[in-house]
Amino acid sequence: MVDVTAKAVTRREATARGRITMNAATVRLVRAGKGPKGDPIEVARLAGIMAAKQTGALIPLCHPLALTGIEVEIRPRRDGFDIQAVCRTADRTGVEMEALTAVAMAALTLYDMTKAADRSAVIGEIRLVEKRGGKSGAWRRSRTRTLG
Amino acid sequence: MVDVTAKAVTRREATARGRITMNAATVRLVRAGKGPKGDPIEVARLAGIMAAKQTGALIPLCHPLALTGIEVEIRPRRDGFDIQAVCRTADRTGVEMEALTAVAMAALTLYDMTKAADRSAVIGEIRLVEKRGGKSGAWRRSRTRTLG
Amino acid sequence: MVDVTAKAVTRREATARGRITMNAATVRLVRAGKGPKGDPIEVARLAGIMAAKQTGALIPLCHPLALTGIEVEIRPRRDGFDIQAVCRTADRTGVEMEALTAVAMAALTLYDMTKAADRSAVIGEIRLVEKRGGKSGAWRRSRTRTLG
Amino acid sequence: MVDVTAKAVTRREATARGRITMNAATVRLVRAGKGPKGDPIEVARLAGIMAAKQTGALIPLCHPLALTGIEVEIRPRRDGFDIQAVCRTADRTGVEMEALTAVAMAALTLYDMTKAADRSAVIGEIRLVEKRGGKSGAWRRSRTRTLG
Amino acid sequence: MVDVTAKAVTRREATARGRITMNAATVRLVRAGKGPKGDPIEVARLAGIMAAKQTGALIPLCHPLALTGIEVEIRPRRDGFDIQAVCRTADRTGVEMEALTAVAMAALTLYDMTKAADRSAVIGEIRLVEKRGGKSGAWRRSRTRTLG
Amino acid sequence: MVDVTAKAVTRREATARGRITMNAATVRLVRAGKGPKGDPIEVARLAGIMAAKQTGALIPLCHPLALTGIEVEIRPRRDGFDIQAVCRTADRTGVEMEALTAVAMAALTLYDMTKAADRSAVIGEIRLVEKRGGKSGAWRRSRTRTLG
Repeated sequence: MVDVTAKAVTRREATARGRITMNAATVRLVRAGKGPKGDPIEVARLAGIMAAKQTGALIPLCHPLALTGIEVEIRPRRDGFDIQAVCRTADRTGVEMEALTAVAMAALTLYDMTKAADRSAVIGEIRLVEKRGGKSGAWRRSRTRTLG
Repeated sequence: MVDVTAKAVTRREATARGRITMNAATVRLVRAGKGPKGDPIEVARLAGIMAAKQTGALIPLCHPLALTGIEVEIRPRRDGFDIQAVCRTADRTGVEMEALTAVAMAALTLYDMTKAADRSAVIGEIRLVEKRGGKSGAWRRSRTRTLG
Repeated sequence: MVDVTAKAVTRREATARGRITMNAATVRLVRAGKGPKGDPIEVARLAGIMAAKQTGALIPLCHPLALTGIEVEIRPRRDGFDIQAVCRTADRTGVEMEALTAVAMAALTLYDMTKAADRSAVIGEIRLVEKRGGKSGAWRRSRTRTLG
Repeated sequence: MVDVTAKAVTRREATARGRITMNAATVRLVRAGKGPKGDPIEVARLAGIMAAKQTGALIPLCHPLALTGIEVEIRPRRDGFDIQAVCRTADRTGVEMEALTAVAMAALTLYDMTKAADRSAVIGEIRLVEKRGGKSGAWRRSRTRTLG
Repeated sequence: MVDVTAKAVTRREATARGRITMNAATVRLVRAGKGPKGDPIEVARLAGIMAAKQTGALIPLCHPLALTGIEVEIRPRRDGFDIQAVCRTADRTGVEMEALTAVAMAALTLYDMTKAADRSAVIGEIRLVEKRGGKSGAWRRSRTRTLG
Repeated sequence: MVDVTAKAVTRREATARGRITMNAATVRLVRAGKGPKGDPIEVARLAGIMAAKQTGALIPLCHPLALTGIEVEIRPRRDGFDIQAVCRTADRTGVEMEALTAVAMAALTLYDMTKAADRSAVIGEIRLVEKRGGKSGAWRRSRTRTLG
C-alpha cells in the first residue's frame, strides 16, 4: 500500500455512477416497492452506503479512511435504474474507490432483490464522473450525462 | 431474508462475467505486471475471491453460505480485461450473488490498481451467464460469448 | 467454544423481542418515514438482519452458523417501537443469540436514526420468547405478550 | 450518511448504561467466574469493547470513526448485572452509538455465557447517560442513578 | 480457491502450538493477571478463538467453514507462554489454518498486552502438531513435546 | 482500551520481521510461483497487507487507526522465507501490532499455500525490529540481522 503519510489532510469528494438494466416489468415491480424482501431501492441504497464504509477492507491495496459523508441515489429508468454515489472525506487519499464500490454494491443488491423476476439483468457503466480536492486536484469526465 | 430452511442441500454452481474498459496503454502496463503496487491481475483475482466469501455480509438479504470453490479468471483484451468468476457450493441457495460479487470486486480492484494511469476506465457487462443445481435448475444466458 | 461437533443437524428456530421507548413526537416522525437519513424502520429492519448474520463474529464464544431465514418486524406503539426477530437454521446449535442480536441492533439503529430528535430514548425488554428444535427441545417464555 | 466533513475535530466522550436481569443463582455462578466457557464478566467486557470498534459497520448510517478510548465496566447486582461503557474520540462526530453498542453487546454476551443456566434473562435500560464535546455540547440524562 | 464440493463432510480436528518468549519479570506481571488492560491470558485466549472464526476471511485461498469447537490453552513458562489451539469441524476441509491462526493471534495479543513492559518479546514455533479426519487421514508431527 | 485521546498525532512507523521454515523442495516449488492456487509469495504479501488493515478488529484492546502505508516483503531462503512488514501512520498510537500482524498473516498464508507439499513447516521469530515516532520515541532491537 503506497505510503501517503506525508500527503495533506484536505477535503476530498468523488462522484461515481452506474446502471442496472432489466426488463420493464421488473422495474415496475421494484418501483412498487413491495417485494417479499422489502423495498429494493431502499435496501440497495443502504447496501451501497455500508459497502462504501468497507472499501478499505475489500480492495486489497486501497487505503482505509474515515468517510465523512455518503449519498447514494437510485433513479428508475424505463429499462432499469441509474445509481449515483457521492463520497466525502477529510483525509490523505481520495474517495474514488469508495464511490465506485457504493455504486457496484447497490447495483448488485438491486440484482439480488429482483433476480427471482429477471435473472438476465446486466450491471454496467460503472465509472467515476468527478473528483475534487487533493493534490491531483479536480477531474471531471468529459461528456457526463446528468443522472436520470 | 427469505426462509430456505426446507430447501435441499445440493451442489450448485454459478458463472458470472464482466469487463473493464481502459485505454490500450494502460492495458499494456497491467500486462507487464510491474506496477508500484504489485501485479494488478493477481491482486484483482484475489480481491474477487476474497469478496465472494464476504457476499452474505455485503448484500443485505443474501443468505450466508460456505463456498466450496471459487475461480476467478482475468483475460486481457486490447482495450481492457474480461473477468469471469465461477462459484460452487453444496448448500440451500444458489451462488449467483457470490459470482457476481467476485466479478465486480475484481473489476474495481483493477480500476484501483490502474487509476493513476487512467481514471476514465469503465466497468460494465456484469452479468450471470450460467447457473446449475438447485430446484430452479439450470439456466443459461442466451447468446453468451465465450470469454476472451 | 464448546465442542458441538457431535450434535445433530436439525431445524432450529428462535424468536426474540425488544422495545425502544421514545417520546410520542419522535414516534410520529419515524412513522412518517421521511427522516434526512431515510425511513428509520426500514433501515433498522435491515440492520437487524445484517447483524444477525454477524452474530458469530460479535459474541466471542458463539458458534458461527449459516442462517437459513431471518425476519425482523418493527411495530410502532404510541411511545416507541416493538421489535421482533425470528431466526432459523439447519445446523448444530440454536439461534437464540442471532435473534437477540437482530433485535438489539435494530433497536440501536432506531436510536441512531432518531437521536437528533430525542436523545433520551431507552432500549429494553430484549428477551428470548420462544425456541424450537435441537436436543433441548422447545422452550417458551411464560406470559408472553403478543407483539404490538 | 449525513455529511459531517465541515464539522470540527474535537474531543468527544459518551457514557451509556444498561442492565441484564437474571435469577440470583445464575448471578452467583457468573461471579464465581468459572463457567465452562471462561469468566463471563471478562468475556462480556471484551465483547463490548470489540463491538464498539465495529459500530460504523453495524449501524447503517453511523459514521465510522477511530475510538481513542473505551472502558466497559460490569458490576453484579443481586438479580443481574449493570453495564457501563465510556467511549472517547477526537473526531467529527459523537460516540453515543459506540457506547450504546458496547453496552448492548456486553449484555448479549452475558446472556450467551449464562443461557444454559437461565434462558429467561432480560436485557434492558440501555440508554445514553451523558455526552460531552462537539457542537451540540454537553448533555446529561436527568436523574441518572450511579452505576451499582 | 480449490474446488472441494465433492469432498466428504466428516469430523475433522487439528491441533496447533506456538510460543511467545519474553523476560521473566513480564511473565510474572501477566500471571498476576492485573494489567491496566485486563487479564492478558484471558484476553489472548478470546482473541485466538475469535480469530479462528475469521480464518476464511483472513487467509485468501482458505475455504470458509463453520467451526464446531475451539479450545485455546495458554500455559506460562519461566520465560514466556506456550499456546495450544484445538479446532474441530464437520465439513469438507481441514481446520489446520484455523488452529494455526488461533495460536498466532493469541500470541500477538499477549504481545500487545505486555509490550509496554517488554517490547522485545518474540513469537515462534507456530506449527501444526496433529490433524485427524478427512481423506488424507491422521497426521502427527514427530517428536512433539507436550504442552508446558 | 487505554485512553489515548490526548496523545499527539504524529508520524509513526514500525518494522517487524518473521520467518517460515520449510523443506527446500517446497521452497523451490514456491519460487517457481506456479502452485494450483496462484503465486504463493504474491498471495502471502497481499494477505499480510490486508490483515494489517484489520489489526484493530483482531487484537481486542488494540486501538483502531488508519494506516497510511504498508509494505510487506518476502524473501526466499534455502529452507524457507523471511518476511518483513513496515507500517506507517499519522495517528495517536504506534503501529507495532499492525506490522506484527502483517508478518504473522503473511507467514500463515505461505503455510496455507504450501501445506499440501509440506505440513511440517514452522513459523517463528516474529518480532518487532524497529519503531519510530510517538512520545516513547525510537526503539531498535539490538543485533538485528538484515533481512535475507
